[in-house]
Amino acid sequence: MTQPETRVTAGMIVIGDEILSGRTKDVNIGAVADFCTDLGIDLTEVRVVSDEMDHIVEAVNALRSRYTYVFTSGGIGPTHDDITADAIAQAFGVALPINAQARAMLEARWQQTGTEVNEARLRMARIPEGADLIVNSVSAAPGFRIGNVHVMAGVPVIMRAMLEALAPTLQGGKKVSSVSIKCAVGEGTLGGPLAALQAEFPDVKMGSYPQMGRDKVMVELVLRSSDEARLAQASAAVRAMVVDIHQKAGVALPQE
Amino acid sequence: MTQPETRVTAGMIVIGDEILSGRTKDVNIGAVADFCTDLGIDLTEVRVVSDEMDHIVEAVNALRSRYTYVFTSGGIGPTHDDITADAIAQAFGVALPINAQARAMLEARWQQTGTEVNEARLRMARIPEGADLIVNSVSAAPGFRIGNVHVMAGVPVIMRAMLEALAPTLQGGKKVSSVSIKCAVGEGTLGGPLAALQAEFPDVKMGSYPQMGRDKVMVELVLRSSDEARLAQASAAVRAMVVDIHQKAGVALPQE
Repeated sequence: MTQPETRVTAGMIVIGDEILSGRTKDVNIGAVADFCTDLGIDLTEVRVVSDEMDHIVEAVNALRSRYTYVFTSGGIGPTHDDITADAIAQAFGVALPINAQARAMLEARWQQTGTEVNEARLRMARIPEGADLIVNSVSAAPGFRIGNVHVMAGVPVIMRAMLEALAPTLQGGKKVSSVSIKCAVGEGTLGGPLAALQAEFPDVKMGSYPQMGRDKVMVELVLRSSDEARLAQASAAVRAMVVDIHQKAGVALPQE
Repeated sequence: MTQPETRVTAGMIVIGDEILSGRTKDVNIGAVADFCTDLGIDLTEVRVVSDEMDHIVEAVNALRSRYTYVFTSGGIGPTHDDITADAIAQAFGVALPINAQARAMLEARWQQTGTEVNEARLRMARIPEGADLIVNSVSAAPGFRIGNVHVMAGVPVIMRAMLEALAPTLQGGKKVSSVSIKCAVGEGTLGGPLAALQAEFPDVKMGSYPQMGRDKVMVELVLRSSDEARLAQASAAVRAMVVDIHQKAGVALPQE
C-alpha cells in the first residue's frame, strides 16, 4: 500500500453498451488502475454502465461525491449513441454549447487531414459550460474536466494519451514529473529500443502514443517518474535512441 | 438488441484490490458479458470493488434489488483477504457455517491430490446458510447461489467453468442447451481441431476447461447452443474428433 500524506481516491466509470455486450473487451480499467497506482491515487471503485442517460448521470453523481477524482471513458465520439457529454452536463446541471476552443482544435486537425466538417463531427466540440479541455494528441477531439470529473475517450490509445495530458493537473500521493519526446518514425521501429530502455529504467514509466489521422507519422513518447534524477537520465537515453533511429531512417526529427 | 419475451437483466460485481491496483487485469467482465449475451440476458451494470466488507455488501444489496441476476467474481479463496462469502452472508443477514457438501467436495479432491486439510483451506467450505453450491470442475472449491446472487471464483478459468455449471439454472431470453465432453488429453492437443470445429459451427459456442490439481490430465469441453439440432451435429463432430485424438495418443477415453 502507498502511504500518501493525505489519502487521494478515485472512482472510474466505463461507459458503453459494447463492453456490457462483450463485443469489446475493456482494457481501460487496467490502464486507469496502473495510472492511479503510479500517482499514488487509490482507485476505489469502477462502474461499467450502458449508453443510457439515467445510468450515466446516476453513476457520475454517486462517484463524484465520494472520491477525490472521477475518470470516465467512452461515449464522446461523433455518433448519436455518444451521450457522455450530455449526461455530464445533466449531472452538473449546466448547458452543453459548442466550445470555441474545442471547435478550433478539431477544425485545425480536419483542415490538415482534409476531413469534412459536419454536424456529427461537431458534436465532439460540445463541452459542458465551465469545463476545461483535456488535450487529445492522438485524434484532436478533446476530453474535458468539470469539477472533479475527467471525461475521456473510450479508444484505449486516446484514453491513455488523455491520462498523460491530465497527470500534471492531479494531486497524487507523490509528485510525478513527465517528459514528452516527439518522433517522426513509427511505433514498430521505436518499439524494440524503447522496450530495452524501459527494462533499463523500470522506475520510469515509458508510454508511446501514436497520433492518428495525420498525413505524416507522429508518435509521442511520454516518460514519467517521481524521481527527477532518474527521469532526467532516462529522458537523455530515450532522446539519444530517438535521434539515432531518425538518423538511420533518414528522417528529420520533428519540431518540439 | 435481443428481443426476449420478458427482459432478463444482470449486474456483475468484480471483487478484488488487485484489479483496482492494476496488478491483475480483469478478463471476467468480458467473459460474463459474452455469457449473458449468449443466453439473451441483458448485462446492465458492472461494479469493481475493493476487498472491503462495506463496499462488497453495498454493491451486492444495490444490484440484487435491481437486476434479475447478480454475478460476482473474486474473493472466495483460502486467504484472509478472501471475504466475499462473509460479505454475502452479511448482505443477506444469514450465518456462514462450514457446509458439509462443500467440505466433502474439497476433501475428495484433497485426498486425490494429497493436499493437507488446514484451517485456511476449510475457509473455502464456508457457505452462507440457504445457499446452493455451484460446482467447480477445475479446482473443486465451490461457488454458491443465494437468492439471485451467484458467487464465483476470480481465477478466469474457474469462473468460466462455474458459468457453464450455472447456465442450465438461468432463465435467459432464449433457451440454451449444453453438452459436456470429457477428455484425457491436454488443451494443447485439443486446441487446433477444436478451433477448426468452432469455425465450422460458429452458432455453437465451444468452451474448454482444464481441470487443475489432479494427477491425470482432464479437460472438459462444453458446447452450448439455442439450436438443438445444430448442437447435436456439433457434439457428434466434437466427439468424433475427441475419440480420434485419444486413439492417436494411445490414451483411454475418460468415463463420462
